Amino acid sequence: MPDSPIDPFRAFMDYRWDGVSLLPYKEDGAAPFKSVTRQVLFHDPDLKCELRYFEVAPGGHSTLERHEHVHGVMILRGAAEVLVGTEVRAVKTFDLVHIPPLTWHQFRTTGREPMGFLCMVNAERDRPQLPSEADLAEMRSHPAVAVFLAAK
Amino acid sequence: MPDSPIDPFRAFMDYRWDGVSLLPYKEDGAAPFKSVTRQVLFHDPDLKCELRYFEVAPGGHSTLERHEHVHGVMILRGAAEVLVGTEVRAVKTFDLVHIPPLTWHQFRTTGREPMGFLCMVNAERDRPQLPSEADLAEMRSHPAVAVFLAAK
Repeated sequence: MPDSPIDPFRAFMDYRWDGVSLLPYKEDGAAPFKSVTRQVLFHDPDLKCELRYFEVAPGGHSTLERHEHVHGVMILRGAAEVLVGTEVRAVKTFDLVHIPPLTWHQFRTTGREPMGFLCMVNAERDRPQLPSEADLAEMRSHPAVAVFLAAK
Repeated sequence: MPDSPIDPFRAFMDYRWDGVSLLPYKEDGAAPFKSVTRQVLFHDPDLKCELRYFEVAPGGHSTLERHEHVHGVMILRGAAEVLVGTEVRAVKTFDLVHIPPLTWHQFRTTGREPMGFLCMVNAERDRPQLPSEADLAEMRSHPAVAVFLAAK
């Protein structure tokens, strides 16, 4: 996280931004995911949310998780299949995804391009929860979700 | 502002989003601006910020103003000249702009395309202030700012 004042102008080039570090998706190795990077675009004591950019390589996916806090997501590049609760939907550049509280969700790239998305989130938030075997069984009782979760 | 639950999936088409209203830039007619529209992409009691999309037609500009609250901006389409404090900078798609507290700022389109930007802002925030004649004189003492403010 940047401790210095934020530069008013930070130029974009090739899905990187001036002065913004390319970070691992998760700090620890506990949660399963594949081929995801993270960049924190806005993190400011005067803003009560953060804006992050996540990028998932072709064939990659974010962690299947849920939490009390909400996500406001905009796809910035590429295409994905997204699970929100019991719904699976194909999304593309500039589509919006809203993840309500305590709702299982996961992003998977589709196609040969990386898939990148902006994610707005409260700066103060709870830690994600991972599904138990019972949670997974419940999810798999929904046919579209079972197909989504079986994808490699 | 939407009072109903937010649809988890809202598709993008031609710089509009499913279920998102096209709004006037400002509710009142008091502040000067030209050819700007507003769409609220995320407004949710569980999120402490809002994400808005503003679009400025060719030749248009936002209000010259300042306020205590901070803006986290990403250009989404087109090109602009942006004033932040005493700095004027050309920006283009996906560049980031951070507006610190109580800092005069204005966006002007450049080129023949509309210019659109995302703006993240605290849900609870103060009202913008407009410059006095003395404020404008001080701003114009900076040559680049004087040129920017003289543009039509």
